[in-house]
Amino acid sequence: MIASRRNLLKLAGTALVGTAASTAFGAVQRSSFKNFDETYDVVIVGTGFAGLTCALRCSERKLKVLLIDKMTVLGGNSLICGDNFACPGNPNQAKLGVKDSRDIFLKDCLTDGLGINHTELLDVIVNRCNDVVALLRKYGCVVDDAHLGISSGHSAARIIESTTSDGSCYILPMLEALKKMPNVTIRNRTKMDRFVVDESGRVVGIAARTDYKFDSKLASDDVENQSGKKVLYGATRGVMLAAGGFSRDTWYRKVQDPRVPTTMDSTNQPGATAGALCAALDIGATPVHLSWLQFLPSCNPDEPGYGISANFIEHACYRYGIIVNPKTGKRFINELAGRLPKTEAMFEVIGNDENYPVAIGDADAAAAVNPAFLKAPLEKKTVKVFQTIDELADAFKIDRAALKATIDSYNAAVKSGKDELGKPMDVTKGIQIAKPPFYAGRVCPKIHHTMGGVLISEKGEVISMATHKPIPGLFAGGEVTGGVHGASRLGTVGIIDALTFGMVAGENI
Amino acid sequence: MIASRRNLLKLAGTALVGTAASTAFGAVQRSSFKNFDETYDVVIVGTGFAGLTCALRCSERKLKVLLIDKMTVLGGNSLICGDNFACPGNPNQAKLGVKDSRDIFLKDCLTDGLGINHTELLDVIVNRCNDVVALLRKYGCVVDDAHLGISSGHSAARIIESTTSDGSCYILPMLEALKKMPNVTIRNRTKMDRFVVDESGRVVGIAARTDYKFDSKLASDDVENQSGKKVLYGATRGVMLAAGGFSRDTWYRKVQDPRVPTTMDSTNQPGATAGALCAALDIGATPVHLSWLQFLPSCNPDEPGYGISANFIEHACYRYGIIVNPKTGKRFINELAGRLPKTEAMFEVIGNDENYPVAIGDADAAAAVNPAFLKAPLEKKTVKVFQTIDELADAFKIDRAALKATIDSYNAAVKSGKDELGKPMDVTKGIQIAKPPFYAGRVCPKIHHTMGGVLISEKGEVISMATHKPIPGLFAGGEVTGGVHGASRLGTVGIIDALTFGMVAGENI
Repeated sequence: MIASRRNLLKLAGTALVGTAASTAFGAVQRSSFKNFDETYDVVIVGTGFAGLTCALRCSERKLKVLLIDKMTVLGGNSLICGDNFACPGNPNQAKLGVKDSRDIFLKDCLTDGLGINHTELLDVIVNRCNDVVALLRKYGCVVDDAHLGISSGHSAARIIESTTSDGSCYILPMLEALKKMPNVTIRNRTKMDRFVVDESGRVVGIAARTDYKFDSKLASDDVENQSGKKVLYGATRGVMLAAGGFSRDTWYRKVQDPRVPTTMDSTNQPGATAGALCAALDIGATPVHLSWLQFLPSCNPDEPGYGISANFIEHACYRYGIIVNPKTGKRFINELAGRLPKTEAMFEVIGNDENYPVAIGDADAAAAVNPAFLKAPLEKKTVKVFQTIDELADAFKIDRAALKATIDSYNAAVKSGKDELGKPMDVTKGIQIAKPPFYAGRVCPKIHHTMGGVLISEKGEVISMATHKPIPGLFAGGEVTGGVHGASRLGTVGIIDALTFGMVAGENI
Repeated sequence: MIASRRNLLKLAGTALVGTAASTAFGAVQRSSFKNFDETYDVVIVGTGFAGLTCALRCSERKLKVLLIDKMTVLGGNSLICGDNFACPGNPNQAKLGVKDSRDIFLKDCLTDGLGINHTELLDVIVNRCNDVVALLRKYGCVVDDAHLGISSGHSAARIIESTTSDGSCYILPMLEALKKMPNVTIRNRTKMDRFVVDESGRVVGIAARTDYKFDSKLASDDVENQSGKKVLYGATRGVMLAAGGFSRDTWYRKVQDPRVPTTMDSTNQPGATAGALCAALDIGATPVHLSWLQFLPSCNPDEPGYGISANFIEHACYRYGIIVNPKTGKRFINELAGRLPKTEAMFEVIGNDENYPVAIGDADAAAAVNPAFLKAPLEKKTVKVFQTIDELADAFKIDRAALKATIDSYNAAVKSGKDELGKPMDVTKGIQIAKPPFYAGRVCPKIHHTMGGVLISEKGEVISMATHKPIPGLFAGGEVTGGVHGASRLGTVGIIDALTFGMVAGENI
């Protein structure tokens, strides 16, 4: 192979100078573990879902683990994302009479993913998602799979909804468990700069900085931030890359889609930048689907980031209600369409004059979802409450008659089971927009998830672009990887993706 | 900046070992030009359009140039691609009464590119394409811009068609001119393995192999081929990467789109693999739009590769005729739609039973295009000739009455100027399918162009993902770069892209 041949290349008469080129993140090279500042069996970069399930499995195997995060708050984006995750083949589906299968799940994912998903990775999720549920429960997470939800793009009720409304319900118990384990060291404000690779090409550690102060005021924290103390961590078994996506990397997301202004809001925490991904590409990791950015079309323009309204909008209004264009009072999209077509349709309505669509649901819709979803947005008035449709129409400057006609037509579609925009009416439980009070809020897409990342195997091994084989000692899982979701991720599949491949990597590293 | 800080990183007590990691292509590092086997001002990797226009400009600047190609035959894919290229703002457009502008050209490109094109790069093409025409003429190429063509996705006649039917009409005269230049050295069968980078991060040369024997029988020539003699070439001013796309890299294209089987035919020459792209990513070049593959929907399944029918199919049948589904006898797509929607529509018709669509044109259509387009396919019978529509229908097992009805309806649309499938009838010159003989051939998409590559500036500098600034000493142009075409390249824009950025890099390197 070229790669090993290359490794033997000697430069006659010239000493090698410097370390990595200043043009690249580069890889530090060293021949032994002697001079690392600290050495572990496994070093895990990132403390979101993938990092924590990996750490738990490593810990069960009695491995000595270092878990690092560049941010002050642990948990990464997983701490603030939703808590609902798809679990196709959950035993309760049979009890509840839900028809689901590997093929139905894959078809749903491939439809939104435009057919380019790596199905061998989706199969890992199908085969292992129930093991994830067991792992979460083992470490104190409450996983209520007695009620299975449905979400946009899914054609079967397969979604486990927790008792809160964000991912902290899993992150915090897992962190709590890990903190008590003697073989696990957790460090926040510790940033990986690049990988350490030995002469055989194996990843044997990382070059990092402790006491790192992430600075969201910088145009690019990865490029400009010079804070912290340099340190080298050895990893005798390998390094797990669980560093998340780059939705907040305003430079790199604009390279992929020049239409995304640097000022565009994102649902992600500020640390979601491309630095760790770059470091992996720099040692030959194969990039896959990096061009695909995803917007979440259930955000609210009247609050920053992911905000507090998205769950109510998605689960109450989109499932049991409607979205209308305030200029026409009409619906313009199947409210349960996938994220990609819904985002495109919304951007068209919003146009250049910020004509944000309005999502509407009634009392029955609100009663059908977790009460926590409505409490916070009502308090902050990002979702408003009205006793009549006329009041609602006036508040959003929608023509009263047009809105009433739209609602009458929608209610008729709920009754008949046939919707002209293709909404699958069988999941609406017959709920019409009829019972006051009525709830409504403005909606828009925000940049939410970056589909692309490094290519991994079914074991979570990172695949080299030069050899087409695993890079020894390097594993990855979650949003820093690509392929699972193809062109567009279905809601609730990102969480199970990260939880699953973190766990799987932790079994194989 | 992190990058320069990193460059100063010293590893206490450990000698650096080896060169690049075996997991990656890696970069050789050295501090002076003393020990290169040969040193030039500029080393150019690839002898297609971008490589040659770069070499010509460098030569005009009296620079000492090495031009290499891994293949035996020089010219890369440019030698066998089409010869038509877009030239928006060509002086003859005004003489011919053609309305065109920067904005119209960009709108056409952005429509097919799904809006993600890097418009600052398209502007370079707009501003410099007439300089390219002058450059080609200066070095002996015949460029006939008296007749301007139109092609799918273009809304103005802006396409320069040469006197032959492939890119050799430009490649061969340019190569001839370069071979006579004393300051230019040209080597075939010389493969770049990786870049040589000095301690400041500047690209100062390449590690290559001479006497390389490309082996298309290998699953991956880049990974497996061990042929050739190792050599180090220095480049005092810089290296130009003009290595083309990866349409024939069966592994990497499948990573990006798992639906593309390794057996799928391509219009490209066998050397179109991802090796050089990998080497650039490995020294920190920014990947852009790598996920987007393009299929050429004017290919013929009855001949291998790009074949000999594509020009007749595109310029005669698609512009002045129709495409029908043989099962229904009906049209199914605007024949002048962009490549992306046309490809998707065709794959749907082809299905799993190889139901290839049939393209049809009449005597007037044939007379309206370069006679060379028809001669070869008629001789090889990949396009067939018929005296009646009934004979044509029978030959392709199309229902006679259905086909006649389709043709009547199409002819009426030509007359009225309004087509139900949205074909812009103003470019059909009133040509109906009426005058015998009639010509027809089967059509299908083949993998044709890879939109993605490394990010470049308007000067052709390769941009580092780590610094967001140019990598000193590294330039690129043509298909190995990404951004110009966005998600989908318009036909005839790839050639002018490569010619322009080769020339521009040659002015700036």
